[in-house]
Amino acid sequence: MMIDAPVPKPDGRQSQTAAAIQRGVLRFLAAHGQAGLPEVSLASGRRADVLALDAKGALSIIEIKSSVTDFRTDAKWPEYRPFCDRLLFAVGVDFPLELLPDDVGILVADAFGAELIRAAPEHPLAAATRKALTLRFARAAAGRLAGLYDPDLRPAQEW
Amino acid sequence: MMIDAPVPKPDGRQSQTAAAIQRGVLRFLAAHGQAGLPEVSLASGRRADVLALDAKGALSIIEIKSSVTDFRTDAKWPEYRPFCDRLLFAVGVDFPLELLPDDVGILVADAFGAELIRAAPEHPLAAATRKALTLRFARAAAGRLAGLYDPDLRPAQEW
Repeated sequence: MMIDAPVPKPDGRQSQTAAAIQRGVLRFLAAHGQAGLPEVSLASGRRADVLALDAKGALSIIEIKSSVTDFRTDAKWPEYRPFCDRLLFAVGVDFPLELLPDDVGILVADAFGAELIRAAPEHPLAAATRKALTLRFARAAAGRLAGLYDPDLRPAQEW
Repeated sequence: MMIDAPVPKPDGRQSQTAAAIQRGVLRFLAAHGQAGLPEVSLASGRRADVLALDAKGALSIIEIKSSVTDFRTDAKWPEYRPFCDRLLFAVGVDFPLELLPDDVGILVADAFGAELIRAAPEHPLAAATRKALTLRFARAAAGRLAGLYDPDLRPAQEW
């Protein structure tokens, strides 16, 4: 038996701009020793655009804003802060950065990479929250990976 | 920009029997609410065939034995025990189970699933080891996933 190559599908909910920024952000994270996982459901029911985990266990949430409209229609971004040590926005090269709040990190990204324009303030998670988030991250990532390799894999629950 | 479907390659180091058992084990784990990740490098330098993480954070190592020879030539399997809460062997349906040691769990697997023949004794990990292993699991899984979606992603280090 050969285990064939998985063929995942693009995420149809995402705009092309958001998809490009996501790829650039994931490249940036990888190049800086952080593992990034897109679209992670949090205990609050919201989904982080990207959750990143560094080698020491610090968790960053990167919210992707594909346009000014996308940013202005999202009043709920502060709700991500309790689920990370650092909160960043990632925007395209044309985004007017002065619109962004002062207390978040900023990444400017395109499909090929990203640049850290402003480091994020740190607000360390409580140990129990970090543990739960890391577990969620780990199980979601492995579950998706296994599902790519074996489309007939049937999880008992959502990861 | 579309993010195209990833096309991972089969692991050429693995026998067909081992690959079939691995798939069955991963299906079993998913059906029982555990996220399984194949081929996880441990701090000892050895690689666990499958590392599984349940919803409470318990870690199991499942060592795949594709044949009696494969089992008999591995004198080092006890070295996995310090890296898990439970240690199991997964073997094919023709494997003579009486050869296996008493103090490990047993899964009998084929390419379509697995059955738990004997539960593994539990030996809970120290908190620091569990934390380090969970972090390693999380970063490896997300790093592989990102690499499948973007073959040009360049990690700064091995996950």
